[in-house]
Amino acid sequence: MAVYTQVSAEALGAFLERYDRGELLSAKGIAEGVQNSNYLVETTADRFILTLYEERTSTDDLPFFLDMLDHLAADGNPVPRALPDRDGAAIQQLAGRSACLIEFLTGVSVSHPTAGQAFAAGAAMGQMHTSLAGFDQVRANPLGADTWRPFLERCGRDIDTIEPGLFDRTEAALTAVLAEWPRDLPMAAIHSDLFPDNVLMLGDRVTGVIDFYFACTDIRAYDLAVMHTSWAFDGNGENYDPAIGKALIDGYASRFPLSDAERAALPILARGACLRFLLTRAWDWLNTPADALVTRKDPLAYWRRLETYLKDDLFA
Amino acid sequence: MAVYTQVSAEALGAFLERYDRGELLSAKGIAEGVQNSNYLVETTADRFILTLYEERTSTDDLPFFLDMLDHLAADGNPVPRALPDRDGAAIQQLAGRSACLIEFLTGVSVSHPTAGQAFAAGAAMGQMHTSLAGFDQVRANPLGADTWRPFLERCGRDIDTIEPGLFDRTEAALTAVLAEWPRDLPMAAIHSDLFPDNVLMLGDRVTGVIDFYFACTDIRAYDLAVMHTSWAFDGNGENYDPAIGKALIDGYASRFPLSDAERAALPILARGACLRFLLTRAWDWLNTPADALVTRKDPLAYWRRLETYLKDDLFA
Repeated sequence: MAVYTQVSAEALGAFLERYDRGELLSAKGIAEGVQNSNYLVETTADRFILTLYEERTSTDDLPFFLDMLDHLAADGNPVPRALPDRDGAAIQQLAGRSACLIEFLTGVSVSHPTAGQAFAAGAAMGQMHTSLAGFDQVRANPLGADTWRPFLERCGRDIDTIEPGLFDRTEAALTAVLAEWPRDLPMAAIHSDLFPDNVLMLGDRVTGVIDFYFACTDIRAYDLAVMHTSWAFDGNGENYDPAIGKALIDGYASRFPLSDAERAALPILARGACLRFLLTRAWDWLNTPADALVTRKDPLAYWRRLETYLKDDLFA
Repeated sequence: MAVYTQVSAEALGAFLERYDRGELLSAKGIAEGVQNSNYLVETTADRFILTLYEERTSTDDLPFFLDMLDHLAADGNPVPRALPDRDGAAIQQLAGRSACLIEFLTGVSVSHPTAGQAFAAGAAMGQMHTSLAGFDQVRANPLGADTWRPFLERCGRDIDTIEPGLFDRTEAALTAVLAEWPRDLPMAAIHSDLFPDNVLMLGDRVTGVIDFYFACTDIRAYDLAVMHTSWAFDGNGENYDPAIGKALIDGYASRFPLSDAERAALPILARGACLRFLLTRAWDWLNTPADALVTRKDPLAYWRRLETYLKDDLFA
């Protein structure tokens, strides 16, 4: 959400000389993504996103992310590819960081999706899952189900400063989810973070799926469950919109054959997704100063979603 | 430097319907300016900057800024105008803020200006001062010389936490500057903050002068002095580059007749400019948490510049 690394116009101009993509006309630092620095760059030829990778982990995993994007783009999915320079290299060094020049996609992220938009976004995920059946690279999910208990323990009792009793309630919910967590569903490369922020749309059309830096190998239907938790509730997590929830699943199923086992597992997968985001948001909440300009996302919005999934079968 | 106010795609789409400027294709929050939220907006017709004004003061002064920009643009200066909607209104309300849709200008801000670039930037200021001779609106400078002592007193002895002895040294320098401060030089509408950040260039050509939100009525040559303090030193304020300093003055004088009295006053005006930025940076330093993501600018970089001006006549 911030530009951590400043790139001078002089350095950017020299960087662009490695590509056949025109000369620098404009560059603006943009507030996009959560962990990297991004610039919207305009040249005499086109517009691009310049991403500088701030975290060592994501740098190590860059080849996985870029290969997955290339695979999806080659199959017609609207995802942004990292562009190769004249020598064919997509990963560069700039301002002391690994950096990529990335395709710019038009479209805006909707804040209040309509059912038509949710259907289209679900269909875009279904289409990606169809394409990714042919992608065989593997990246363990650094925020997968096996990490949730250690994550809760790292947060510790401090989590009760967010709301009294939250540790015990989270611990109980986690124990229940892990006891039922499916171990025999198909695994695949997934996005794992397909919130409305990460889908660009024009009207009811998906023009871009972005921010693949949490992409990993995990239960394929978990990807759809994450999407359900993030699209079908309001920002506070208080109100569930069944028309949006249905449209997401219907859209997905229109492009990818959701099996009966996957469909049956959606409630438990959604509860797991709620715990994953509750835990990472709680960690960020406890470790971000209240007056920092980074927006802290409310962990309790995910507790409220979890309670709704516990109360009703939203996939019935 | 941050996007303080979030505008939903839905609200932005509706906002653009007030204009004949195409339909929304893309919007990215950009890290530009110091006190407002800015988006780079693309429509089917063109690109624009959307600015949401966060501070009540600048909202009150918006008509002054916009009229000054219109006046400069009408006279051929490369400044961004706020665009009127279909009803002729340039100032709107959006997401609870005053907001303007503003022309997008290409160009990049240079970090290490060459003498040719400094000459062009000085000439751009000279050209603006020529145009502004015909602009008769008045806005008192909220950071003018009369405010510097109260400002230092507000900082108080806390300023010594930045560097021991800084309060006394600043107080002595301030007393000396105010005793000599010129009271009979021509006043005019000035930019008052023309740092390299605020000049867009392509090569040696100035394509944009931006960020007029400190514009005010003050000693006209003070504008050039501010520019000199910000362009002719490195970021630490340690090294003065006489070729850049000379190019700025020569460029300015190529477009505007700098009088002997103005030229003679440049050393004291530059010392005053150093104090103005030292004081506002010190205030921000003392009032911004060290771990906030807003970059705190080093107040001492302006103390070092002040020492250089005290030691030598850089305008000789």
